[in-house]
Amino acid sequence: MRIGIIGLGLIGASLAKAFKNNSLYVWGIDKDDNAIEDLRSENIIDKGYSTIEEAKDELKESDFIFICVYPSMVKKILESIKPYLKEDQIVIDSASTKQKIVFFANKDPLLTKVFIGGHPLAGKENSGYKNSSADLFRGKIFFLVPSQEVTFLKIDKAKELIESIGARAMITTPIYHDITLAYISHLPQIIAYILADTSINRDRGKTFGTGFKDTTRIAKSPVPLWLDIIKENKTHILKSMRDFYSNFIRVYNAIEKEEWEELEKIFKTAREKRLKIEEINNEANKN
Amino acid sequence: MRIGIIGLGLIGASLAKAFKNNSLYVWGIDKDDNAIEDLRSENIIDKGYSTIEEAKDELKESDFIFICVYPSMVKKILESIKPYLKEDQIVIDSASTKQKIVFFANKDPLLTKVFIGGHPLAGKENSGYKNSSADLFRGKIFFLVPSQEVTFLKIDKAKELIESIGARAMITTPIYHDITLAYISHLPQIIAYILADTSINRDRGKTFGTGFKDTTRIAKSPVPLWLDIIKENKTHILKSMRDFYSNFIRVYNAIEKEEWEELEKIFKTAREKRLKIEEINNEANKN
Repeated sequence: MRIGIIGLGLIGASLAKAFKNNSLYVWGIDKDDNAIEDLRSENIIDKGYSTIEEAKDELKESDFIFICVYPSMVKKILESIKPYLKEDQIVIDSASTKQKIVFFANKDPLLTKVFIGGHPLAGKENSGYKNSSADLFRGKIFFLVPSQEVTFLKIDKAKELIESIGARAMITTPIYHDITLAYISHLPQIIAYILADTSINRDRGKTFGTGFKDTTRIAKSPVPLWLDIIKENKTHILKSMRDFYSNFIRVYNAIEKEEWEELEKIFKTAREKRLKIEEINNEANKN
Repeated sequence: MRIGIIGLGLIGASLAKAFKNNSLYVWGIDKDDNAIEDLRSENIIDKGYSTIEEAKDELKESDFIFICVYPSMVKKILESIKPYLKEDQIVIDSASTKQKIVFFANKDPLLTKVFIGGHPLAGKENSGYKNSSADLFRGKIFFLVPSQEVTFLKIDKAKELIESIGARAMITTPIYHDITLAYISHLPQIIAYILADTSINRDRGKTFGTGFKDTTRIAKSPVPLWLDIIKENKTHILKSMRDFYSNFIRVYNAIEKEEWEELEKIFKTAREKRLKIEEINNEANKN
């Protein structure tokens, strides 16, 4: 099996390490020559290239090609590699939004047969290949969002490959994916930024407990990536923010009017939901 | 040194373990006989009692008495132990709000000399003595909020004791404490409940990443405790929620109107603030 990875940041380099651990042939492209050199010398990639043009023979002969770049860059990369692709290959990206990119692929006679939108729920606040690890995907959800003409055989192959590195493949549609992610990833990210901005002031230094630090940990994430994601998923994100807002107002009013029973009901529901997802996750990791 | 601990839950039992590690004499009161029995048999407390009446001789002879119960219970305990207290003792509580309780102590000729409001930033979402540990306070802030007539000598003794179990004592005023905590602890807690409530629905199961889980971890915390804290610190909490709300609206509008530069500015400020507190904390832990 030959695997190509375009973009060797945190996700791309972690995929390379994970596949290499399974003794697969892995090549990569990155504009950062240091990344290529470091990963090559550690035998994490077999071959490294600076441009798509340089890697065209590899592109032609690979079974899987992963595109691990910022969401807004995926289309451009797909356009550039298309001349070297054939129907029997599989191309997977790793961006946090799927609707726009899968709709784009659906309109192209070749891409609609080869492109599977991918999204590992395995981000970290520390980006770059230096923070990569072969274990990044272990036990994590990896969404697979196939284009319309992708065959079931290919979906199954992609699932198998993803699961061989310890991830839990979840096959779904572009719209379901983007709505879900607005609520479980993009909204929490935005809230973490707002909370960090609201609570941290110069005169309130040195006194942050573990609760606060965990709640705002993802506010350390790179801003350009998140601007990109928000641009791509604007409509669903605004919807999730309106839902958050109406719950926020319910809580504010309950506190202001001292409706303690109402407040207790809201908090208890929230707590039970949160305890439940731990259970579900523990179950899933046992299987 | 003789230390009494009233309420042997997560905080009380952790204090007992930490003091016991330093070979101090520790006795405790809890209404749960199992807690008393377990902690006694493991030599974490030297003596255990079910009621204040039973422990009155210990109360008279202790150097420090810690009150580790729900915020709304502290006053009642102070009233009950007062007949057995003398001027040279030190009484410290562990509740998350300090203004009401220290103002209460300031009005009493004896309590204003012996009571130091205490608050370790060392909560966990799992409560109870079974989750306690001697290391709970290591590297954590422990606020000390003295009543008006407490002498500097006593403040210094309290500081020394707190630091002997690895905590970082921070001496401050009741109002400063409660405003700060509204922003860095109570607001994040409320937001975590609201976020869990908004994002987790039955049809969006099984797909939560580490970012979401960390952001909402504290939503697993016990609800009765938080209702109690919110009742005690209502005014400051509502103020912090209004600040959060106005930042939330700024972000919502920037996304809706696609003012990406404005959004970038807000997120970058938030990110820099969040990175900064990590630095400050690392510095503090080095010293």
